[in-house]
Amino acid sequence: MNPQHAKQDFPVSDIRRYLEPGPVVLVSSAWQGDTNIMTLGWHTVMAFSPALVGCMISAGNHSHGMIEKSRECVINLPTAALTDAVVGIGNSTGDTVDKFTEFGLTKSEASEVAAPLIPECHANFECRLFDDSLVDEYAFFIFEVVKAHVAPLPVHPDTLHYKGDGLFMVAGETIDRHDGFTKVS
Amino acid sequence: MNPQHAKQDFPVSDIRRYLEPGPVVLVSSAWQGDTNIMTLGWHTVMAFSPALVGCMISAGNHSHGMIEKSRECVINLPTAALTDAVVGIGNSTGDTVDKFTEFGLTKSEASEVAAPLIPECHANFECRLFDDSLVDEYAFFIFEVVKAHVAPLPVHPDTLHYKGDGLFMVAGETIDRHDGFTKVS
Repeated sequence: MNPQHAKQDFPVSDIRRYLEPGPVVLVSSAWQGDTNIMTLGWHTVMAFSPALVGCMISAGNHSHGMIEKSRECVINLPTAALTDAVVGIGNSTGDTVDKFTEFGLTKSEASEVAAPLIPECHANFECRLFDDSLVDEYAFFIFEVVKAHVAPLPVHPDTLHYKGDGLFMVAGETIDRHDGFTKVS
Repeated sequence: MNPQHAKQDFPVSDIRRYLEPGPVVLVSSAWQGDTNIMTLGWHTVMAFSPALVGCMISAGNHSHGMIEKSRECVINLPTAALTDAVVGIGNSTGDTVDKFTEFGLTKSEASEVAAPLIPECHANFECRLFDDSLVDEYAFFIFEVVKAHVAPLPVHPDTLHYKGDGLFMVAGETIDRHDGFTKVS
């Protein structure tokens, strides 16, 4: 494995550090021997503990049914080095394409779920479906992150943030306003 | 008014352009003559039309009750020029502080809701509560954006993206991958 892809265990209650800034993520899933990946930009952190993340996965995606049936997925955090894969995955369908092969990504075994980790990504968050009450009406899945794997470096990965119209914002500089906080969280 | 703060009407179905990259927002509200502002990082776009945005507004916030009762708010998009206000608003409570006065922000009249617009922000999205079914359990409010006001320049505002621990990522460069899209949206 490329040493840049080596991950460390990371506290699930702190995953907001990576997801709250709003990056595009790659969601991997598995069901009955099949695997798939989708590109996703509509998600939000919902709680620290349990570590909840809400994701919009519309029924038009091949992944929707796989995740609804398996009740699991992995949220993978790509960086700008994977821009081609992020765009390609978002513009093809798992109905007809093996996206891992097509976009040169590897599958690595997760510890808590059957869906594969994508080691080329900066972080991998193993998820179980926590609440499906808004799936039928809005395609909104509330997941609990049950295990997190994060590369220790770089400390501030250059994540991609989708703006629509084929445009991505790449994460810029990080500024520290710790001194302005009464209670840092 | 500072000419930089002049806004134009903007199609509500396109607000993902500003909210999908995951910026911190300032949510303004009004109830029985009182107004308030809170800093919010946990939100996601949920649909284009109606233009839905889901927001986590925990019950510990003074704004929670005001928004639950008035069933309205304005989501305002600050830029790095407002970092001090964003931090200060997120670290004080409307129980005891008039945040507009304290942080030097102006109130401007909205057209569809009673909550005030904050003209110093790059964009203002007037919202009505669309679905409160997850408010009691998760403090998750699903709003419909009913009117959007956006400053035409800069085209790519330097939004703030919170990472926890007092750290903010400032929006970096925008890259165009339009050519990789089969159907741009």
